[in-house]
Amino acid sequence: MKYLHTMVRVTDLDRSLKFYCTHLGLENMGRFDIEEGRFTLVFLAPPGQPDAQIELTHNWDPETLGEGRNFGHLAYEVEDIYATCQKLSDAGIVINRPPRDGRMAFVRSPDNVSIELLQAGEPLPAAEPWVSMENTGAW
Amino acid sequence: MKYLHTMVRVTDLDRSLKFYCTHLGLENMGRFDIEEGRFTLVFLAPPGQPDAQIELTHNWDPETLGEGRNFGHLAYEVEDIYATCQKLSDAGIVINRPPRDGRMAFVRSPDNVSIELLQAGEPLPAAEPWVSMENTGAW
Repeated sequence: MKYLHTMVRVTDLDRSLKFYCTHLGLENMGRFDIEEGRFTLVFLAPPGQPDAQIELTHNWDPETLGEGRNFGHLAYEVEDIYATCQKLSDAGIVINRPPRDGRMAFVRSPDNVSIELLQAGEPLPAAEPWVSMENTGAW
Repeated sequence: MKYLHTMVRVTDLDRSLKFYCTHLGLENMGRFDIEEGRFTLVFLAPPGQPDAQIELTHNWDPETLGEGRNFGHLAYEVEDIYATCQKLSDAGIVINRPPRDGRMAFVRSPDNVSIELLQAGEPLPAAEPWVSMENTGAW
């Protein structure tokens, strides 16, 4: 067996593509607009890791997605967790769990999918503004 | 950035390991029992694909997980979708969406995480009992 993807539903495709691609850095691996089914699928993957995809499903007719706790989060390793969080913060994305420890942060997608960011290798030395930043909401 | 895992919470760890490993075929990549936090993490991946992990989180104290629709499913490609579904069915797992088309099936984990199974390559020729099997519940 082979892992293909984790599927997440998105209510606003443009906003989600901005979040996952422009801000988070995933690459668009293919988009399928299915007129008969009235939905669009977009497959995204980290650069150089084409087999680790997420599938965005956007149903054209409005729907309420809600959230449960059986699915927890998507986790990505990043080169510089402070630079990543600064970039996300500059884009108006709340850093729900700031990387106070130089190691781990959590943000949420526009549809409240929890995203864990982990520093590659050793934790970074503690640094402001992160070390003094409190949690915001849940993740 | 690099994909690390999709995390899912599980209420019954033994039952979930039976589902994901014994029945579905994922391999155990590491288990961490965290006494202080009263939780256990188990990392699973398909054979030969160690970077495509799921993380099972089991909190030792009882919790209600519920389910939302923002997270959709985990998708895996399989060599023989009929053989996989037969094995799952023999283990008492409901095939919510049988592979009537020789191509796609859906089952649910013990905590209602939706799992998509896709036939590798071309769809298999239509075959009983699958082609006559109706859907069961949602997925």
